[in-house]
Amino acid sequence: MTNTIETTIAAIQPLDQKSMAAARQRQDNLTKPRGSLGRLEELSIQIAGITGNTLPKLEHKAIITMAADHGVVDEGVTLYPQEVTRQMVYNFLSNGAAINVLARHIDARVIVVDMGVIGGFEPLPGLICKMIDFGTKNMAQGPAMTRQQAIDTIDAGIEIVLAEKKKGLDIIATGDMGLGNTTASSAILTTISGYSPDVTTGRGTGIDDEQMAHKIKIIEKSLATNNPNLKDPLDILAKVGGFEIGGLAGVILAGAAYKIPVVIDGFVSGAAALIATSLCPQVNDYLIASHVSAEAGHPLLLEFLNLKPLLNLNMRLGEGTGAALGISLAGASVKLLTEMATFGEAGVSDIETPEERG
Amino acid sequence: MTNTIETTIAAIQPLDQKSMAAARQRQDNLTKPRGSLGRLEELSIQIAGITGNTLPKLEHKAIITMAADHGVVDEGVTLYPQEVTRQMVYNFLSNGAAINVLARHIDARVIVVDMGVIGGFEPLPGLICKMIDFGTKNMAQGPAMTRQQAIDTIDAGIEIVLAEKKKGLDIIATGDMGLGNTTASSAILTTISGYSPDVTTGRGTGIDDEQMAHKIKIIEKSLATNNPNLKDPLDILAKVGGFEIGGLAGVILAGAAYKIPVVIDGFVSGAAALIATSLCPQVNDYLIASHVSAEAGHPLLLEFLNLKPLLNLNMRLGEGTGAALGISLAGASVKLLTEMATFGEAGVSDIETPEERG
Repeated sequence: MTNTIETTIAAIQPLDQKSMAAARQRQDNLTKPRGSLGRLEELSIQIAGITGNTLPKLEHKAIITMAADHGVVDEGVTLYPQEVTRQMVYNFLSNGAAINVLARHIDARVIVVDMGVIGGFEPLPGLICKMIDFGTKNMAQGPAMTRQQAIDTIDAGIEIVLAEKKKGLDIIATGDMGLGNTTASSAILTTISGYSPDVTTGRGTGIDDEQMAHKIKIIEKSLATNNPNLKDPLDILAKVGGFEIGGLAGVILAGAAYKIPVVIDGFVSGAAALIATSLCPQVNDYLIASHVSAEAGHPLLLEFLNLKPLLNLNMRLGEGTGAALGISLAGASVKLLTEMATFGEAGVSDIETPEERG
Repeated sequence: MTNTIETTIAAIQPLDQKSMAAARQRQDNLTKPRGSLGRLEELSIQIAGITGNTLPKLEHKAIITMAADHGVVDEGVTLYPQEVTRQMVYNFLSNGAAINVLARHIDARVIVVDMGVIGGFEPLPGLICKMIDFGTKNMAQGPAMTRQQAIDTIDAGIEIVLAEKKKGLDIIATGDMGLGNTTASSAILTTISGYSPDVTTGRGTGIDDEQMAHKIKIIEKSLATNNPNLKDPLDILAKVGGFEIGGLAGVILAGAAYKIPVVIDGFVSGAAALIATSLCPQVNDYLIASHVSAEAGHPLLLEFLNLKPLLNLNMRLGEGTGAALGISLAGASVKLLTEMATFGEAGVSDIETPEERG
């Protein structure tokens, strides 16, 4: 590991228990039956613990959407042509993609990052270049990337959070774009969880039964070819990962290090969270699972991370779309915590013996 | 029924199939794998059908929160003192309640309506007075209200939508406030669904096991005392309903009549939807179920209405809080439909033979 990764991991602390206790106490004094805002109460308390602030504000919101290509696409695991990764980056930059629409809806900025798209890009306003290579190698034939490249992806993610933090950054959503990246994510989940590819693999962009059976075989072959070391997250990332997955793992680590809540999107962001939590289990407390996607392996992945998704809308797009909706709920939760009147302020009668209610 | 109710029901049409087909076609041409936005795609298509507009806009959003008291509170079915209904109306008007915070979050206005709160109110800026009486009668002893009062509640709801429509109204959320109103709602659900009070009754503001057993007995007693006529929704509303429940039923009918999507909140709004759909089954297509609440009977209620909630956040506050979050998702869904680039516009490659994908 680099100094950057080690320093980042060393900075990750347990959540601030004092802020959480104070936020919980405040929730119990707001003008509503105790607990009646359900998961929004829990979420606000988690965010108080992450930020170390009893009255957190989520003003500056960023969706970090990382794009990269995957050599394993050569094996025919996806429905759309590979050039769609590159085309979608242009779509992000011209504000035409789903994530742009949802970012406007929640008043967030989208940070578009080229982590290694085939063909590369000319310098473009709004595009951050952290390109590692023109796509990964085909993991069915050998390692997707070198160990050094894996390290570089994580460093890149950390650097981006550091740079964005200087512009103001109160909450992060992770997003991905990359044809073939659900295949890499299934390989990561299979390795780390021990579940069979039969249950960790989904239909990605929408493949049929025959293509699905083929995709599972390719994942099995990739794991057999590379034999990633379960105890070495960087080895897993290098052998069966992707540049954007490593980048997002770096984003997640840096979010936790800087006490910024990280809202993770779907299956590919979840694979990044697996890498990040394998490197540093404490990261888990900083994660907010926005949604459970329609990708077959995602419920297993969230269960493995012991994360309960906020939404279940049968989405499977990636880009950070589910996470954008999650940011909106996180924003609602802290506004409720910070802006609602207490029983005392509003002159509303509380039940007589709240302490007796257990 | 009055002329107003009859005219309103007569105006309720099936959804506009042409707009829905056009919206579905547009969804299939947007830059994402088909169906990958899941329920947000379905929701946008429903809203196109409701509004008769392929490219709907949800600019003017209103949460209609109706408050009333319930005579059945005399039986000791709730945890908080009855004056909380009145106190919370003041809290709504001073913007200190959860619904005010969420309304600001989604940029909606809150319409606060006194449908019959004990004590009444002096004229207050922002409070609409549709007061039927100072709370309903105790339904465990006799009918909660007269048939004429039941009719008046529905008329009041219709009138409010008509008045708000003049100010601009693209989507409505329903909300309620009234100590004792989960008891009335359980009685309505029991009558209409035929389920036992054992499964239709929940803990409301947070009662314990003993209080819960008592609440169930009171509902059984109310139904035995009044014997509401299953075939006559106005009779059910009059005998075991509430003023705010009838008002919200009117809001729902008027929303459907004026082709405005109605996002229903939790259990009490659900009871209003049961009355409205019993009066006019076509109303069902105009409803968007925002969330399934923690109130025990709510999942059954939604199943009975064949509505699938968007959210499941263990909330049980009422006021329109779940519906406010639902409006945000509805807004997101139509923005995705209307603002995303198509494959053609963005120069993104589609799969070669979309028609073969079934």
